[in-house]
Amino acid sequence: MAEEILRFPPDRLKEFCAGILERLGVPRGDALTVADHLVLADMRGVGSHGLIRLGIYVKRLRLGIINPTPNVRVIKETAATLLVDGDNGLGMVVGKRAMEMCLDRAVRSGAAWTMVGRSNHFGMAAYFAMMALPRRMVGIAMTSGNSVMAPWGSRVAFIGNNPIAIAVPADREDPMVLDMATSVSARGKIIMAATLGKPIPPGWAITKDGRPTTDPKEALDGGALLPVGEAKGSGLALMVEALAALLTGSPSGPDIGELYATFDRPQGTAHTFGAIGVEAFVPFEEFAGRVDHLIRTLRALPTAEGVERVMAPGEPEFLRHRENERLGAPVPEKVYRELADLAKELGVPVL
Amino acid sequence: MAEEILRFPPDRLKEFCAGILERLGVPRGDALTVADHLVLADMRGVGSHGLIRLGIYVKRLRLGIINPTPNVRVIKETAATLLVDGDNGLGMVVGKRAMEMCLDRAVRSGAAWTMVGRSNHFGMAAYFAMMALPRRMVGIAMTSGNSVMAPWGSRVAFIGNNPIAIAVPADREDPMVLDMATSVSARGKIIMAATLGKPIPPGWAITKDGRPTTDPKEALDGGALLPVGEAKGSGLALMVEALAALLTGSPSGPDIGELYATFDRPQGTAHTFGAIGVEAFVPFEEFAGRVDHLIRTLRALPTAEGVERVMAPGEPEFLRHRENERLGAPVPEKVYRELADLAKELGVPVL
Repeated sequence: MAEEILRFPPDRLKEFCAGILERLGVPRGDALTVADHLVLADMRGVGSHGLIRLGIYVKRLRLGIINPTPNVRVIKETAATLLVDGDNGLGMVVGKRAMEMCLDRAVRSGAAWTMVGRSNHFGMAAYFAMMALPRRMVGIAMTSGNSVMAPWGSRVAFIGNNPIAIAVPADREDPMVLDMATSVSARGKIIMAATLGKPIPPGWAITKDGRPTTDPKEALDGGALLPVGEAKGSGLALMVEALAALLTGSPSGPDIGELYATFDRPQGTAHTFGAIGVEAFVPFEEFAGRVDHLIRTLRALPTAEGVERVMAPGEPEFLRHRENERLGAPVPEKVYRELADLAKELGVPVL
Repeated sequence: MAEEILRFPPDRLKEFCAGILERLGVPRGDALTVADHLVLADMRGVGSHGLIRLGIYVKRLRLGIINPTPNVRVIKETAATLLVDGDNGLGMVVGKRAMEMCLDRAVRSGAAWTMVGRSNHFGMAAYFAMMALPRRMVGIAMTSGNSVMAPWGSRVAFIGNNPIAIAVPADREDPMVLDMATSVSARGKIIMAATLGKPIPPGWAITKDGRPTTDPKEALDGGALLPVGEAKGSGLALMVEALAALLTGSPSGPDIGELYATFDRPQGTAHTFGAIGVEAFVPFEEFAGRVDHLIRTLRALPTAEGVERVMAPGEPEFLRHRENERLGAPVPEKVYRELADLAKELGVPVL
């Protein structure tokens, strides 16, 4: 059965999302931050981090295990580092404020790291890394997550598939934006497959008994994702765990609250943000021009069998974004129906 | 045919290597830096970056395309960043000095990045990342390299399999040390296979016609390595290219001199070093204790089929290192014979 995709003007969709969040006590500015993030994810074709997630954020706000009005603040600092307390706010709100602090600090110091504790699921890592681009910086964003992945050599979920995003500014070309889970596939894609009743490719996940599976429900029900590149993805995930969870004194591995299962306490998610000023090293125009050249050269390379054109990191998402600017923001019908029910319940005008 | 492995006391081996380099005008301290690096790689079981590499460094020194007495210096700086000119020195010498500068800067600023241009092949990235450990910091080391890998979607070598190393200090346990090429396999392992006349596993490389191969000579003769995790390894390599080659105004991709083929000019390799002070965020003892706990928990996880025990990143290398401290530093006979010939030629006492 093909999934039905509904289309909406992005601004109306944002207003709709923000309206729901405002009913739950989220200040308008922060509600718009979350709405902007979710709709951008759907526009970029990263549906796993789009509106499909609003329902769970709402549930957690209603249970009182996300703080709708966090006081996001610096609790320790040096010239190039900030330790930030997220005060258990929505991850997208905490992350945006923390990345802004990181960028401001990098203006003064050439580069900066901002580690954030007491936050929640923050969505699409690329969102934060890309905030560095208009500031002429390279942006980095990583996060801990609840234990969904089997470390290499193991057969049980123990660590998050901690994603890494890096954004590099270009001149006339779209920037290079890498946003990768450290598992073979993002868990969000498996959640989306489960929501839509579709199978997942082999190699993505194992069941709770350590058996390979293509059933997204089995993968999510006590099963585990597998790390990309065996020991490499596993090692990267552990490094992110050290930089995010351990450097902020936050919960780690199975002690991180599960977004869809732990409802008696906050998640305790931790993030790592980095910013590197290009002009601390070379003139921006020179750098950005060379990034353009690299992208154009990549695109002109001879292709492997079955590949139409080589793409730069993030290029598929920019192409999808432009396509969706013409077509409207895509929302799977099932997600739409869930949100429409929620809106009615909260007295928010349905789209 | 099994390869013959000779064993030597590490200190005698270092003295032997240093003696060869001194004959070529490398000051004794720098010669010992290179010798220490190469022997450490062999001790850790990373033979691809051990004594097998001395011959090519010697050849490049003799051709005058590596500067034996570089003036490694800062050419631009901010509070948290240094741009360093490697003055075309041996990569291991340039890298060590630059990482020391980075660590010193991170003591003052909490964290620092040091980008290095005009350097050469620097060996085992973990060597530099691990320099951060006694300073109670997380260390990062990355480098550009000559074009040996096909970007995802392409079928030709275009980018280096730019490695990433991250070292995280522990307390009583060995530190966590990730050192990964962004290709499925390190090129050094393919060079070693070619040197020893052994095949390589399928999936590591393609031929110059884009065909899969298990013949290391075909892979090295105009063929290409494949990126780990498809678009992910490819994307990581491009990000390292931006952070190392482009942020230092250095050559990129095919413009980087090939270690074993470009003999009319320097390589133009560029490195990225990072240091993050643990105590800029949390008390060191607390952090290191939690890293210990993470490692011990990992080790106790239920294993996948055919796996004896889950290991932390870098653990296999620490185990190998201790084994080789008992057995002696391993040198493949073929590598030994090449170096013995070289030593005779240079009038250095043969081991």
